[in-house]
Amino acid sequence: MLPQWIIEKKREGQVLTADEIREFIAGFTAGTIPDYQMSALAMAIFFRGMTPDETAALTDAMMRSGDLVDTSAIAAPKMDKHSTGGIGDKVSLVFAPLVACCGVAVPMISGRGLGITGGTLDKLEAIPGYRTDLAINEFLDVVARCGCSIIGQTERLAPADKKLYALRDVTGTVPSIPLITASIMSKKLAEGVDGLVLDVKCGRGAFMKTLETARELAQSLVRVGRAMGKQMTALITGMDQPLGCAAGNALEIVETCEALRGRGPVDLMEITLALAERMLLLAGVAQSTTEAGAMLAKQIESGTAWETFLEMVRLHGGNVAALEDTSRLPRAKIQEPFPAPQTGYVAQADAELIGKACIVLGAGRTKTTDAVDHAVGVSQIAKIGARVERGQPLAVLHANDPARLSEARKLIAQTFQCSEKPVATPPLILEEI
Amino acid sequence: MLPQWIIEKKREGQVLTADEIREFIAGFTAGTIPDYQMSALAMAIFFRGMTPDETAALTDAMMRSGDLVDTSAIAAPKMDKHSTGGIGDKVSLVFAPLVACCGVAVPMISGRGLGITGGTLDKLEAIPGYRTDLAINEFLDVVARCGCSIIGQTERLAPADKKLYALRDVTGTVPSIPLITASIMSKKLAEGVDGLVLDVKCGRGAFMKTLETARELAQSLVRVGRAMGKQMTALITGMDQPLGCAAGNALEIVETCEALRGRGPVDLMEITLALAERMLLLAGVAQSTTEAGAMLAKQIESGTAWETFLEMVRLHGGNVAALEDTSRLPRAKIQEPFPAPQTGYVAQADAELIGKACIVLGAGRTKTTDAVDHAVGVSQIAKIGARVERGQPLAVLHANDPARLSEARKLIAQTFQCSEKPVATPPLILEEI
Repeated sequence: MLPQWIIEKKREGQVLTADEIREFIAGFTAGTIPDYQMSALAMAIFFRGMTPDETAALTDAMMRSGDLVDTSAIAAPKMDKHSTGGIGDKVSLVFAPLVACCGVAVPMISGRGLGITGGTLDKLEAIPGYRTDLAINEFLDVVARCGCSIIGQTERLAPADKKLYALRDVTGTVPSIPLITASIMSKKLAEGVDGLVLDVKCGRGAFMKTLETARELAQSLVRVGRAMGKQMTALITGMDQPLGCAAGNALEIVETCEALRGRGPVDLMEITLALAERMLLLAGVAQSTTEAGAMLAKQIESGTAWETFLEMVRLHGGNVAALEDTSRLPRAKIQEPFPAPQTGYVAQADAELIGKACIVLGAGRTKTTDAVDHAVGVSQIAKIGARVERGQPLAVLHANDPARLSEARKLIAQTFQCSEKPVATPPLILEEI
Repeated sequence: MLPQWIIEKKREGQVLTADEIREFIAGFTAGTIPDYQMSALAMAIFFRGMTPDETAALTDAMMRSGDLVDTSAIAAPKMDKHSTGGIGDKVSLVFAPLVACCGVAVPMISGRGLGITGGTLDKLEAIPGYRTDLAINEFLDVVARCGCSIIGQTERLAPADKKLYALRDVTGTVPSIPLITASIMSKKLAEGVDGLVLDVKCGRGAFMKTLETARELAQSLVRVGRAMGKQMTALITGMDQPLGCAAGNALEIVETCEALRGRGPVDLMEITLALAERMLLLAGVAQSTTEAGAMLAKQIESGTAWETFLEMVRLHGGNVAALEDTSRLPRAKIQEPFPAPQTGYVAQADAELIGKACIVLGAGRTKTTDAVDHAVGVSQIAKIGARVERGQPLAVLHANDPARLSEARKLIAQTFQCSEKPVATPPLILEEI
């Protein structure tokens, strides 16, 4: 079948067969189907959508475009967690060691930040010495030894996704639920996990701005995972304000350490524990949410989760002393509080603007080749509902460059709104799929 | 503005500005905008359409992607005629000399056949020696000397169209009214004509199968031409059965000669004269259809049209003796009549199947690089409504290869249907835009 016939079939709103999808993706990966045919198909998919079966076939074809991680030597249930990305989202860093010490293996292949969204790898690289580029055998070895490992995507893992993602970025074909689904799931399922817990973010600081689109994506992800025989749960969680009180790579490592030592911000802990409970249930190591919650609490109280994190970092070559004394992490030259202009209750703390301030400060990227400054960011971010006195900081800006600081200050000035009347804390977990 | 922003804008159904369209086409022509962005935009245009202003801007940008023919040295009104393509459509060959000898200059740049549709250039090349590749100055010289010239597209004429057409062909983006409009009009208007008469074909043997889609295309073409300051008329004409009684290159030259000598088939003459009348009115050389009709009839009766055709062919290097005695044109080895299986009235003579038979015999192309056999084709095609006796030929197949003949015979066997009751001749001119 000629590639253009497959494009035409989708263009006319017909359902592609698994064979047609496999053939197209195989040709695209091998380079026999050129980019201009792939981009035309992607645009037709944007307009016509895909059925769950088509999306599963696309995911499968992209997953099989490269190597599959063979986790069969690991006896424990192998699970992973994926977030669609937000501001201040360091959940993976707390979650992986926490779940690992409850008997679930977490072989996590994670990504870098792009746009306002931070990336787990960039945060880990704020720890001096931490290697995110372990080979797959080293990665599996770390999982075997401490129960979890977090590395970056290799060239050989779902190469079709790498190629298609770069193409979608420049052809206006990013916001398509089936294409997003296949991109996320092809990478995650190539890890060789038995199940996946998803955190689909929704709100100002998320890719999905509305509950409807977040729900659509969550359902698509769960459906495809289940169709491929994986155990799946998804939570839709709010991302109107940042998660926790810090955004920026080293600043989020500090907050991660606090969380693993039992001093984490309420919202960060709520989401982390909710996701971790679902995972323990999926993995069958707990029989109820209550039991799972108790198990997790014990790992934090006993210090086991913290020790597991230190062990993982050590096995990745990271400097554990910089975690035990976080003043040894990269630190920005300038710390400048942003004072509340009035006394009242925080009514808004716009995640998107804080994300943009982080980019301006140098903590994030606007294109994949940008370098990242691990030290800069925003800390002590006031949460919605908090009472603040005039002059008291709504946030603290960490900068290495006065001009960038000045730009970021303008964004932060628009970030917060205060109300004279008390403001309720917004719900965090919006739905479970 | 990044190319992907323009793609996204169209994807979201917004109207592109003339500057955005110009920038995109200029980048695509120069190669700075890659094919994969052009194909994504083409697919977005397929789904979202374009306003008349956008279509005109696209036409203009494509027209200006290469050289424009400077016809200013020709004093007469300069006009052209374009057909969207059908089976047995040799109208241009009769039309150009006929109109030329009424005082309208016809600088015609024509195309080759592709798929079931024949091409004027292939037909002309059935005349031994006829050169379709004149340089633009030679072309203008022929127009100045005999009033008309028919050549093929040069590399420098609307190169954006050449590039985009090849891309659309392999990316499922052919059937889009704005893209078809810009493709046709950019080439035609680069010829430097003052006006254009369009023959939009509709039916089994045409690209547009229904009156609705043919009307939509005709309106789009006329609107864009007028927006660009050209005088425009379009006729929508039926293409359920072939035009005239012959399909195949040399066979159609024979029929062209007959037509110019006053012995043309009724349907061929009806369309040719209808289009020619409109052109004389557009050009202002006649004031009424009646006057135009009388002028045209005179040119045929007096032999002037025929002499003009011979002169044009001679100026193109063609062997005029082969027109005066058409037995000297390429002739197939085998002539095989296809007998009517029953006595009755022809109820169907499927143009598409006859077009396919021509391809099978070698008269047409399935891809642009295929060679064409000028001698083969189908002649003496019975017209709908004609009475035929059992055993009398419904058509004559001209073949150079027994295996191809055998394939073509199967198609011709499905082409005709006969009825015991009289069948009306279908209307030929369906609408005027």
